Amino acid sequence: MRLHRLGERGLIRRIRRTIGSPTPGVRVGIGDDAAVLELTPGAYLLATTDLVIEDVHFRRRAAGPADIGWKAMAVNLSDIAAMGGTPLFALVALACPEKTDVEEVDRFYEGLADAARPHGVRIVGGDTSTSPAGWIANVTLLGEMTGRPRLRSDARAGDRIAVLGDLGRSAAGLAALEAEARPPLPDEVLADVTRAHLRPVARVAEGKWLGVADGVHAMIDLSDGLATDLGHVACESGVAARVELARLPVAPSTRAVAGALGLDPLELAATGGEDYELLFTAEAGPMGDLAAGLASATGAPVTVIGEITAGDTGVTFLDAAGRVVELGSGFEHFRG
Amino acid sequence: MRLHRLGERGLIRRIRRTIGSPTPGVRVGIGDDAAVLELTPGAYLLATTDLVIEDVHFRRRAAGPADIGWKAMAVNLSDIAAMGGTPLFALVALACPEKTDVEEVDRFYEGLADAARPHGVRIVGGDTSTSPAGWIANVTLLGEMTGRPRLRSDARAGDRIAVLGDLGRSAAGLAALEAEARPPLPDEVLADVTRAHLRPVARVAEGKWLGVADGVHAMIDLSDGLATDLGHVACESGVAARVELARLPVAPSTRAVAGALGLDPLELAATGGEDYELLFTAEAGPMGDLAAGLASATGAPVTVIGEITAGDTGVTFLDAAGRVVELGSGFEHFRG
Repeated sequence: MRLHRLGERGLIRRIRRTIGSPTPGVRVGIGDDAAVLELTPGAYLLATTDLVIEDVHFRRRAAGPADIGWKAMAVNLSDIAAMGGTPLFALVALACPEKTDVEEVDRFYEGLADAARPHGVRIVGGDTSTSPAGWIANVTLLGEMTGRPRLRSDARAGDRIAVLGDLGRSAAGLAALEAEARPPLPDEVLADVTRAHLRPVARVAEGKWLGVADGVHAMIDLSDGLATDLGHVACESGVAARVELARLPVAPSTRAVAGALGLDPLELAATGGEDYELLFTAEAGPMGDLAAGLASATGAPVTVIGEITAGDTGVTFLDAAGRVVELGSGFEHFRG
Repeated sequence: MRLHRLGERGLIRRIRRTIGSPTPGVRVGIGDDAAVLELTPGAYLLATTDLVIEDVHFRRRAAGPADIGWKAMAVNLSDIAAMGGTPLFALVALACPEKTDVEEVDRFYEGLADAARPHGVRIVGGDTSTSPAGWIANVTLLGEMTGRPRLRSDARAGDRIAVLGDLGRSAAGLAALEAEARPPLPDEVLADVTRAHLRPVARVAEGKWLGVADGVHAMIDLSDGLATDLGHVACESGVAARVELARLPVAPSTRAVAGALGLDPLELAATGGEDYELLFTAEAGPMGDLAAGLASATGAPVTVIGEITAGDTGVTFLDAAGRVVELGSGFEHFRG
């Protein structure tokens, strides 16, 4: 069978089979946002890694070296945030063509350091290499947490589903960057969506707040798009998820870009990747206080977008009349 | 300036400048075999990462998916060994073309797991992605150690330099694999050198033994070749290193392949990369007991190949008559 027929979730299941089941010391192994390792009883070490490849994850026409560095760090920060942890140390591997200007490499590490600095994350090691073509970067981020990690498998029937910030802005930014002609929109609108795409800001403080807040069940960061990532939560938790499309938070800039490019802003919000917002679930009772508490502590807007129900695992999107809407499935590697 | 004019060591110096100096909690940052992090006082977390790219680090004509997986793990095990640590957990990122057979991906993870299993290392997380062309893998390995890490910067004038095993066998294997015609040699000779190249075995037990043995100063694993890696030790320690070429341990199979291909076996041993043997330094007094003790505890042969002296940092190779011999500089990424 070819890889693109199997899909990413099928591949992860297969890798789990090949490498065996976790052992003592491994609280969470393959398949969540980060591994959770117990080296010292009661204190968890978090570890996550992300590979970023030119012409798969970014195009040099749109993203400069500082953007690539920033985003390679931010996506890992977001994984640690999704566990409710504190990021600490990063290892950075970079490969680029021999003829690359050293100043471009400087910009890459500056972008990395700029994204890391607000969180006190230190770059402590890595690897450098040539590449046959294009830039390739891998960032591994280590963090720590006490308390209970918030897993993809922790959603329960009856939970409400909430997201932070707004959705689809990164996808709008990507669409604007890849449009054949510049969309006829004000500079600040285009800057807002392209910044969301090139310089995402991980919800680290928010993840830490949610990581110790009573009543939070599942948590995940939205890297592959709401449909795909909420699908992971549903699948791993053995529950169904219902989302009301009309409730999805969409920024005015996203709507403007979608309008100019003939795209559906709700489809961008439901399936567009790389927003790096957090999604969490909690029972209906505490959800109100959690949303208010988080907004008050961090300034992050929280929107309840749907609920978890018993039944077949999967995600259903509903329109304003309660009818099921078919959407694409977000950004999935190895899609068939 | 172009990257290939700067050289790998220059690049690492430049990265250190960009990202700032280490902070409390970071015992060893960028530039050694692994980062040494102190999360709990007295207990060190080790972390290392390596990027492995098709047509830079391997060719698919010579290396199957299981070989790629094995080696991606082994090179990281070797980095932890070079610190005197115990490897524990691995994160694995893999990108390959969409059309890749899933069975090939299975073989990759089997190779990884086969290399990890003897050391009790568990694969706890990772990332999967498509690649535009060729296989790309990144393995991050976490380990632990008590005691004092053995650094590249710990060599002192008067130390003897010792290596484990033999040198140049991997380079002979690579030369045999890349030869236009099969060298006219017995199968077992070719199998011996190609196995050294495709399936290196990290000196984990030996590294742990040396990590707690009294009198061991600097330690490094030989990944880029003796000339380059001993050059790192000399540079980081601010000392000179003198190596007697005639003392370099060279296996009969390496000599046979060198003979058949018209190569100099001592040049392979002095500059060939990817042997993943350990090099360490110790004072002349304890060196004899260290070599005998290590050989007795682990079975690894130890050969004293030269000495550390005060003076200009750098590596000098001497022939049997004590004359300086000019050699290539091993395998260096971004070589000018």
